[in-house]
Order: sequence, then structure tokens, then C-alpha cells
Amino acid sequence: MQGLATVLAGIPLAAILVGPDDRIIAANQGARDHFGQGLEGRHLLTALRQPDVLEAIEASLRDRQPRKITYQTSEAGRDSSFQVHVGYVETLDARGTLVCFEDLTEREHAAQMRRDFVANVSHELRTPLTALMGFIETLQGPARHDQAAIDRFLGIMQSEAARMERLVRDLLSLSRVESEERVRPREEVNLGQVIGSVLHALRPLARDRACEITFEAPDGMIVRGNDDQLQQVFTNLIENAIKYGGTGNHITITLERIARDATLRAPAILARVRDQGPGIEPLHIPRLTERFYRVDTHRSREMGGTGLGLAIVKHIVNRHRGRLRISSTLGEGAEFSVILPQWDRQEA
Amino acid sequence: MQGLATVLAGIPLAAILVGPDDRIIAANQGARDHFGQGLEGRHLLTALRQPDVLEAIEASLRDRQPRKITYQTSEAGRDSSFQVHVGYVETLDARGTLVCFEDLTEREHAAQMRRDFVANVSHELRTPLTALMGFIETLQGPARHDQAAIDRFLGIMQSEAARMERLVRDLLSLSRVESEERVRPREEVNLGQVIGSVLHALRPLARDRACEITFEAPDGMIVRGNDDQLQQVFTNLIENAIKYGGTGNHITITLERIARDATLRAPAILARVRDQGPGIEPLHIPRLTERFYRVDTHRSREMGGTGLGLAIVKHIVNRHRGRLRISSTLGEGAEFSVILPQWDRQEA
Repeated sequence: MQGLATVLAGIPLAAILVGPDDRIIAANQGARDHFGQGLEGRHLLTALRQPDVLEAIEASLRDRQPRKITYQTSEAGRDSSFQVHVGYVETLDARGTLVCFEDLTEREHAAQMRRDFVANVSHELRTPLTALMGFIETLQGPARHDQAAIDRFLGIMQSEAARMERLVRDLLSLSRVESEERVRPREEVNLGQVIGSVLHALRPLARDRACEITFEAPDGMIVRGNDDQLQQVFTNLIENAIKYGGTGNHITITLERIARDATLRAPAILARVRDQGPGIEPLHIPRLTERFYRVDTHRSREMGGTGLGLAIVKHIVNRHRGRLRISSTLGEGAEFSVILPQWDRQEA
Repeated sequence: MQGLATVLAGIPLAAILVGPDDRIIAANQGARDHFGQGLEGRHLLTALRQPDVLEAIEASLRDRQPRKITYQTSEAGRDSSFQVHVGYVETLDARGTLVCFEDLTEREHAAQMRRDFVANVSHELRTPLTALMGFIETLQGPARHDQAAIDRFLGIMQSEAARMERLVRDLLSLSRVESEERVRPREEVNLGQVIGSVLHALRPLARDRACEITFEAPDGMIVRGNDDQLQQVFTNLIENAIKYGGTGNHITITLERIARDATLRAPAILARVRDQGPGIEPLHIPRLTERFYRVDTHRSREMGGTGLGLAIVKHIVNRHRGRLRISSTLGEGAEFSVILPQWDRQEA
């Protein structure tokens, strides 16, 4: 690589250089990723399809003034948004127009996600709030002297308020985990002990659902982590397995060592939570960790779910530099696996 | 401008080119904005102070490999965060290292704002929720047969639930306004009529507080806007003036034409809402439009405020390409002015 191609290579944006004959003189890796290979030598019209960008390039070759254009594309079902910077260039190597593509997609996507999030939270709160307000009004008026109705309504109000409280608690958890996501936890955590204490806490729930739980763990399943957060991961996963697995369900939890996980590129520990419930349809699986995504909204609400449990799991696992794997066969149950890098004395 | 300087000018990031003698060959406007004028010819060490960046530049001159470094600065009380891209360059004009500075500050600031927002919303909800849950429990137990207590508690529960509902409603409003902020509204709106109908709706509240309101408006105060949103702006401003102005307060609302507003660079309409209340301390004024910022949290809650009213006003005014001006003298009251571009038949 030499000449202006070396300069383009140093620009951390997709960039191409177009000559006065409208042919591409040079392109960097970002541009190849975006527009395909073999850009050099091609006529501009065969590589770019945005009329506004083409026009700006022509104009800048004429008047040598810089220009800025934004455009949206929707390729392969993915909306992207770019700001294109066009500037006239004249060096000993060549003269032409430098075109840099600034990808605004992520920024716009983040703004959209925030708005969706606010709308979702508001919606989640509005339903129990409306119920609460209705009951308060009924208790003030029609049901004022009906003790049986009063008792019943207060019971429902309590569970609605508790649901809102869980939502608020999960929102705070999620925001805390997100804010720490780049800081890898450093404690030595025994996963066998973590799961043991989660199972102890969930025993009453499991008994209610006549759910049998088998747990096998070899000794020394140590990871680098945060104890509280890993408790939360397995609480959420095992609670889901109990709640959605159906009555009389059998849950199997196993822990094992993996000599080298291909994705993590390190020795790892694999924790599996498998239920024998109805399973999850494949189309839902990739979306399960999205905030407020639910396979069955009504059922999730009935179970007291906030729609944030798996999102919290995913972020905690990310923070631990691990990964979450979900698989299921309809009618045969689902398996949630957490793979965490094994504790390495050298790193400590 | 010629040579590699023309290329640097076309890069939409702060960028400098450093020669093998560690002197800056060229810099673009972004770099001058960031590091100051007169960079060309200076020794690298006198312009950049980040040891990691200096080291990466040296190393890339030696081995010709690209490098990426991130660094944080805190200058003039403002935290900034950069990703620096360093790449070896060799053209007919010069050889050296191209250094591009990608500013990550805005992106990180947005993430931080989202987390703060979630934490704030959760906190705002938690207080009334805890109160509600406490009352439900009391009604189920100790106060079960005490009709006077029941009536009193239900009254408080109703106002707590109503407060949460207002918060949810304001959250949704804010998220809607934000999502439309780039789309300028296009209807012809008569501001005199808008304020007239807001005053009509707020009459009972004003009467409760023994608050006198004077409103003067010449005819034809027309702006380009959205009727509902402008109603919300003046509802929030006038409601605040009534609530925080104190009992027996006098509020003066005026509308006038400005031949040319210096900031908007256009003929404008100025709407002023002035109260004779206790006024606002200067240190609070710049922060009043932040979400959940409150001069007096306890007092705001007592008044039923959500902490979002002025944030909504600011975003609506932004959407209208107008501006909000707040001034106050302690002991003499406060004035909230909204300046909106005047309706222009040519634009329509």
C-alpha cells in the first residue's frame, strides 16, 4: 500500500477518493466492508447509488467547496443512517474528492431504544396503576361497607403494588449492571456454592409447584465474578424454570469444566439449567433477552414477571466476559447455559 | 491550502499529520479547535500531553502498524473521552503518522444520562409505592375496622397513586416530544387563544390560591406550531407561577411582537409569564429544565410536581425552533419567557 491509500487506511471511517474522471482512486477497509471489494478503478455510478451523494461529489469537483449530506438506507432488513462528508483534495499523488461516511446508525438506534424503553416502562406501570386507582375509588364508594369485598380488593391491590415494586427494583438492577458492564468483577466465586444458596432460597417456590430439582456439581467450580450478581443470574434462571416449566416439572442443574471454550478462547465453566416444560418456540429465542420482550405477556404478568429478568442475566453475564446460550425443543423443555471463564490464578 | 492539508480538511474528525522528526506537518480545523492554533511545525511534545498517544505515534513511525488508544481528559471542568487512531502514511508529499481523534464524549454522556434517568424514575416511583404498600398493609390489619382511618388513608392513597400517574403521563409526553424534536410543527397557531384557553382551565386552581392573573395580548399573535404542545407549555408555566408564587400572588402574562430576535434571526413573538413570588436563586436557574431537578424537592412533591414540567417545556420550545428564557430577582418574583418565530406566510 502506498500514496493516498495509506492516508485513507488511517481514517477510522469508511472513506473513498474519487478522481476528476469520476473513477474511484482509492478506498479503505471501511468502504470495502460497506460497498464491497474491488472499488478501485470503478466508476462512481457503479459503486454508489445515492443521488444526493453523487451530486455533492460532482459539485465539489467543480467548486472545491466541502459538503455534508445525510442519507438513510435499508439493506438486508437493517436501517442504517449516514452522514457523508465530501471535500476537495489536491496532493502530488492525485486530485479529486475525499468522501467519508460517518455511520450515525448506532447513535440513532440508542436514542430510539431509550424512547422505546420509556414507553415500555410507562406502559408496564400504567396497567397496575389504573387497577390500583380503580380499587381505591371502589373502596371509597360502592364497597365502603362490604368487608368481604374490601379484603379481596386489598389482596389484589397488594399484589399489583408488589408487581410495580419488583419492576422498579429490576429497573434499578439493570441500570446498575449496565453502568458497571465494562468493569470486570475480580472476586473469586464458587459457582457450586452460589447455586446451592439460590436453590435453598427457592425451595418454598419449588415445593409449591411440586417441582423436583437435581443439582450436580464437581468441587472447585471457581470463576472470577461478583457473588451477588451471579446469585441474581441463577435466581432468575432457576425461578423461570420453576415457573414456566409447569407443575410436576423436573429441573436438572449441572456444572462442568470446559478445557477451552471456542468463543471465550479460555478454559471455562459451563452451568446448565434444564427444564422439562413445554419449551420455547425458535422464533422467540433470539429475542428473549430484550427488555420487556415476552413470549406470552398475559402468562408472564400472571407469574409476576417484570419482563426484565433475562435482560439482567444477559448484562451480568456480559460483565463477567461470559456468554448465555439458550436452546429448546418444543414439548421437551428448554436449556439455559451460562459459560464463564474459569478462575485463573495468573490473572489475579 | 494544498497537499495533505487538503486531505486532512476532508476528514470529519480532529486530525494531525506528524512527520518522522516528531513535528506536526498538518492539522485540520477539528484539531485546531481542540489543541489550539498554530500547530503546524510544532514539536509533538508541545502540542499533545497524552503519553499513550505519544508512544503509539512513535511506535507506528517505527513499525508502520496502525494503533488505537483511548484516553480521558478533564479540561475546564468538562470530562471528555477520545479514541485515537494512529496510522503510518507515505505519499509523494510527505511521510509520517496520521492521528485521528474520535470524540466518544457525547456517546458516553448519553449512556450516563440514560442510567441517571432510570435511577431517577425508579426513585420517584419508589417513594409513593412504599407509602401505598404501607397503607394497604395497615388497612388489612390494624385499621381494619376503623372507618375514620380507612377514609383518611384511602384519601392519601388516591393522591399518591395520582402522583404516580402524573409521572407516567409526563414521562410519555417527554419521550414523545423528544422523538419529534427534529420535525418542526407546521400549523398556524394563535398564541393569544392558546393562553386564553389555558387560563380558563386553570381558573379553579388560581381561585384556590387567591391568585390574580392579568393577561394582555394584541391581536394576531400567530406562530408556526402545534396547538396541543403550546397549550402544554403555557399550562406548565402558568401552573408553576400559581403554585410557587405563593397565596395572593399577582401573575402578569403578556404577548408582544419583536421585529427581529437576535438569536432566532427572525421576527418573533415574546410570551412572558411573570409572578411576584419569592423568586429563584441564581444558581438554580441554569438547571431548572433538567429532568428531575428541583429547587426544593419536598415542596415540589407537596405541590404534586413530577420534576419533568420544565424539561417538557424546553423540548417543546426547541421543537418549535424557539427559546426559553428564565430570569428572577430574589424576593421580587420570576419571569419565564418563551420566544417563538413569528408565523411567516412565505414559509408555509
